Parts: sequence; C-alpha cells; structure tokens
Amino acid sequence: MPLGLRVMNKIEQVVREEMDAIQGQEIEMTTLQSKDLWEKAGKWDDDKVDIWFKTKLKNETELGLAFSHEEAIAEMLRGYLSSYKDLPQYIYQFQTKFRNEIRAKSGIMRGREFLMKDMYSFNKTQEDLDTFYEEAKQAYVRIFNRVGLGSITYVTAADGSVFGDRSDEFQALSEAGEDTIYIDEATKLAINEEVYTDEKITELGLKKENLTKKKSIEVGNIFPIGDKVAKQIDFTYTDSEGKEQPIYMGSYGIGIGRVMGTIVEALSDGKGIVWPEEISPFKVHLVTLGTNNEDVVSFAEGIYSSLTEQGIEVLYDDRDAMPGEKLADSDLLGITTRMVIGRKTLESGQIEIVDRATGKVTMLTESDVVTGKIS
Amino acid sequence: MPLGLRVMNKIEQVVREEMDAIQGQEIEMTTLQSKDLWEKAGKWDDDKVDIWFKTKLKNETELGLAFSHEEAIAEMLRGYLSSYKDLPQYIYQFQTKFRNEIRAKSGIMRGREFLMKDMYSFNKTQEDLDTFYEEAKQAYVRIFNRVGLGSITYVTAADGSVFGDRSDEFQALSEAGEDTIYIDEATKLAINEEVYTDEKITELGLKKENLTKKKSIEVGNIFPIGDKVAKQIDFTYTDSEGKEQPIYMGSYGIGIGRVMGTIVEALSDGKGIVWPEEISPFKVHLVTLGTNNEDVVSFAEGIYSSLTEQGIEVLYDDRDAMPGEKLADSDLLGITTRMVIGRKTLESGQIEIVDRATGKVTMLTESDVVTGKIS
Repeated sequence: MPLGLRVMNKIEQVVREEMDAIQGQEIEMTTLQSKDLWEKAGKWDDDKVDIWFKTKLKNETELGLAFSHEEAIAEMLRGYLSSYKDLPQYIYQFQTKFRNEIRAKSGIMRGREFLMKDMYSFNKTQEDLDTFYEEAKQAYVRIFNRVGLGSITYVTAADGSVFGDRSDEFQALSEAGEDTIYIDEATKLAINEEVYTDEKITELGLKKENLTKKKSIEVGNIFPIGDKVAKQIDFTYTDSEGKEQPIYMGSYGIGIGRVMGTIVEALSDGKGIVWPEEISPFKVHLVTLGTNNEDVVSFAEGIYSSLTEQGIEVLYDDRDAMPGEKLADSDLLGITTRMVIGRKTLESGQIEIVDRATGKVTMLTESDVVTGKIS
Repeated sequence: MPLGLRVMNKIEQVVREEMDAIQGQEIEMTTLQSKDLWEKAGKWDDDKVDIWFKTKLKNETELGLAFSHEEAIAEMLRGYLSSYKDLPQYIYQFQTKFRNEIRAKSGIMRGREFLMKDMYSFNKTQEDLDTFYEEAKQAYVRIFNRVGLGSITYVTAADGSVFGDRSDEFQALSEAGEDTIYIDEATKLAINEEVYTDEKITELGLKKENLTKKKSIEVGNIFPIGDKVAKQIDFTYTDSEGKEQPIYMGSYGIGIGRVMGTIVEALSDGKGIVWPEEISPFKVHLVTLGTNNEDVVSFAEGIYSSLTEQGIEVLYDDRDAMPGEKLADSDLLGITTRMVIGRKTLESGQIEIVDRATGKVTMLTESDVVTGKIS
C-alpha cells in the first residue's frame, strides 16, 4: 500500500547508495530462467533445490522463476569478462525473487514473492574476494545503521547453505524472530545456533561466558562463494600470463520487505510504528484539528504549500474526523514529525511539533516553518 | 544493463510524476495470483485468456503469474471502498507482467516478462469515469512529450480486447512497428486498422481524405472498463441514498521497456542512440583523449568532481583507448551532452561541449563549467 511502498523505496535507496559506494553497478535480470543453465549448475531438480516455482512456455519448454541469480548473472557476464583487465566487477540488482516455501508466514517477513537486493562480486583471486567481502560487510553495517537497526543487529557466523560452507548473516534481535543466535555485546558479533560449537567460538576470538542466547530475525546474508560456481559452469578469465583461471565470486543479499518488517517489529511502541527519519514515508505529518473552521483550513493549506515548496514531503490529514481519532492514527502511522494545526494555533501563533519517537513537543511560529526551520 | 536501467528508471519517474499529478496513488501488487479470483472473473481458462503462465504451490494449488491486475486490484480495494465517500480512487503501480506469448520478439519490444505501469480508476458513475478518462489521456500526452516521442505519437481509436468494446492506444510512428494506423496530422488522432471503418472515421469527426496509412508501435493504451468488471466480481458501493451501485473502472497501461525501445528505434541516427535530455542515462559524458598525459587526467578529474558536486550526473570515460574509438562509443551511447578534454583543452583553456542530437559544438572555459554553466 502507498505508505509501505514509500518506506520500501527509501530502504531501497539507502541500500543503492551503499552498494554504489563500494563500486556496485546496478542492473536487472529476468525472473524467468532457463532449465539448461540451472541443470548445468546442478540445481534444477527438486531434490537439489526444493523451492522452485516452475512454469512452461506454450511449446512445453520448462522455465523456473528465479529464487536467486548467482548462476544467471555469471552466465550473462561470461560474455563480458574474459581478461584479468575486466576484473573486478561488482553487480547488483533489486529483483523480486520467488521461493516455493511450504510454510510462508508472517506477511512480508517470509513470503513466497519478495523484493531482494542481491549483489555478486567477481574477483581474480581468493584474496581479492576476501578484501571485497570485508568491504561489503562494512557497507551492510552502514545500511543497518542508516535504517535504524544498527544497535540491535549482529554480524553472525552461520552455515553456508547451497553456495558454500560458510556465510555471515546480519541478525536483528527480536522476540518475534525465528532464529536463535549467541551474541557478544562488546564486539557486536554473534554465532548462529546451527554452527554454535566451541571450535567456532574460538575461531571468532570470542569467549563462551560472554555469549547470550537470543531470538533474532535474519535481515541480510553474505556468502563467499569462492570458485565453486565458476568451476561448475566453467566461468574463467585469462590471467596476465595467459593462463585460464576460475573467477572468484561472492553473493550479498538483503530482503527489502523483511528489513521493513523488522523495523516495524523492533521499533514500534504501544501506539504504533516509529519510523526512523531516513526511511519515514513522509518527513512531516500535517494534522488539522477542527476542519469545520475555515481559518484553520486555509492556514493549514498555506503551511502545506510552503513545506511542499521547500521540498519537504508532507502527508496532510485534512479529514473531517474527531481530534482523538486523527492523533491516534498519526501515532499509528509513525511519521517522524507531526505538525498540529487547530484553533489554538491561530490564537497563539504557535504550531505544535511532535517528535514521534520521543514524544517531545516543540512550538514553532508560522515564520519559523516557512523559513525552513523544520528541515 | 546499467545504462538501460537508468533510462528505464527515468522514464518510470516521468510516468510517476504525471500519474501523481492526476491524483494517482502508487502501490504494488503481487505477481502470484490465485486461481479462485480469476475463475470468478471468467478469465482463468486458457481458452479465455491464452497468455497465462501457470505454476503450482507444493500442495498442488494452482497459481497464475499476473498478465494484468484489473481483477486483483478490484478485489483488494473491495475491503476499502464501500461508500460513495470513498470514491473516486486512482491507483497505479509499476509491476513486472508475465505473458506467455507464442512469439516473443524484438527484445524489449515484445517480451514475455516486462515492466508495466498500470493505473486503475474507480468512479461512482460513467460520467465521472469519462471525465477522468480524458484527464488520463492528457497525462499520457504529457508523458510522451516529456520522453521525446510527442511529435510522432497519435491517440488512436482501437478495439477493446478483453476489457470492453473500445480503447485508445498511443501509437508512435515507426517503420519497425507491428501495427498499422491511419493518422490525421492536424488533430494528432489516428484509427487502428482493426477498427478502420467509415463509421469510426465519422464518429471521430475525421475525413477519409486527410488520413494516411502508417506503421507504428503501440506505446500505451487506455480502456474505459465501465461497470463490466464490477458486475462480474460483484464490486459495489453504497450511494448517498443507501443504494448499491457498481463501481465504474478504467485501466491505463504503459510498457516502460517498450517506450524505451521505441525511443531508440525512433530517435537514433547513423551513429547510435540519441536520448532526449529528460531520460538520458547521464546528463554529461565526460571523455578524455590522451589518458597517458597526467595533466589531462588530473584536469578531467577536477572537472568530474566539480560536476558531481553540482549534482550533475556524469559518465566518465577514462579508458586508455584511441580517441576515435572513445568518440564513436560516446555517439553510440547517446548521452545528451559530451564534454571532451584533451591536450588541446589544456593549451587553449577551452572545453569542447557537443550536443549529441544536433552535433552543435560550444566552447566553455573551466570557470564556466565549475560555476554551473552546464546545468
């Protein structure tokens, strides 16, 4: 719906900026995937990958709906990457993925159809991959800080699923989470229950006595694929000495809808959602009390125009409804800043500004507002 | 790929602005569609709609991949629209559609998977629908003007396909087009061959002797659905006298990829693409000649930083390649403004600015460029 979509688009923009900052190039692949390619990669049969949605062309040719794009993007890049001069490349997209989950649940938290940012890295060596992998990890840390989840999100050692033997997950603490992790407050590192062993604790330089068991939601994950996909589909480059070498890949995902759902889950209070400023669907929620008063309405419309002209995004609640209902709805929607205009405003010359997160009230004059004090 | 995606996103933004200007609200629906809904609308069976891609959940429940969203959006809005006070509503989305075409062809011009803007209007009466339909038509005219197709695009009377008995298409003249239309230069109206009759000519107030037969590409289409869908799926509102009335709908589509393809088709010259300014992937193509000259490189990098700081989008070609190759590639890519920096630039203090469409050359000084003369 409109407000949720605006939040999704803002999260997407934060992710885009951080991917661009580490030299990412944005593209978009298709959903429909050819059976041939995925057979070659050994991932077509349902006993290998059990989340395929499959469909057919009119001529009975089978197609799959992409659940991920590692192989497709490698296949596409094969035509462009042949020499060591063409590397590295970092390619990403925002694409709807389809996964035939037996038990889809919790709305946008685990859907069969969801928007994902997936980045793929292509490097000459394992060492170059490791260096970029660290950069990508830091970009993810910045993303979760910017969308308001920084303080509760842990870089979590985890299992590697189909793409390799290890991965790092970004896990946000939440009682509603499906995952169990062991967190270390000091380092912001964690270990997923599935790989929680004494060996892993030592490997990460952590101490068992500092770890606390928590429920969490996986909001992102990154995998160092290494040369596995390259070897499966024979994806190589010619090095500076003329020798064929496998291309080292990495895969970096974030589910945009799940990030939004986690923010709602983690940051709401008893009155409703509390959007962090950078991803709030609007900057200002302009609420009029007493819409039967013409002076209130025309004053509010002046303020609305002035804010809009300043480039400030405003949601204007001009409904003819009871003040209590309008203020409760405003809390529920969770826009960062509420601006209230009623009869009292006109009498006092003071406009009430309420910060949704803290409830803090500030009073501004009309001239403060039209001269940009709100931005 | 990256440059094409940037153009797609810019076309999308033009369309978004024009939809918002006629009170459109943006949402996003799912691709996966339930069989039940489409059966109720009489459009599930392949002998009714022959372009379905169908798939299955693990429990064998059939699903379809949406080829359009009229019924889905009406079903969703059923929960929100019940009173005359809730109307009108104008809802749109940018969504990937799937159509199981027997003969997909011409790349992005007729694909099985493509990005479409679809808007749906919901009005109380046929008269309100007609009024909005005219507004939407004018919004489409503005869109095609802004993306550079205005002078060759005709509002074309056409058949109504599954949604009704008439529609208006937006047809752009092109020898590569699949459609045949009869155009009237003076009014910018046209008639699709499929409904080209004496009766239709008279109905539109045109004269047969003024009409010319042309090949064209359909870049948009709009349908006044009326109360047909509402009656099929029992989608009504309560009017001010407490009576149940059907909701009058309209449907308004534009294929974003096809618009891009048509621009390439219609506006290219012998040297490559010529992007109209508003949708050019970048504003400036900065091309260095002689990258082995350190002074040229550092001068160009200063210009690049300055333009970027001014918020101007720059594609910087700093490749170590022959001047002829770089200039030819620049023509091919078709970015609106080319800025050339080489040894001559440093000697003369003049930067060559070339307009891709006209080939017109302007000379600017470094201080012109850094003080914003280019924007």
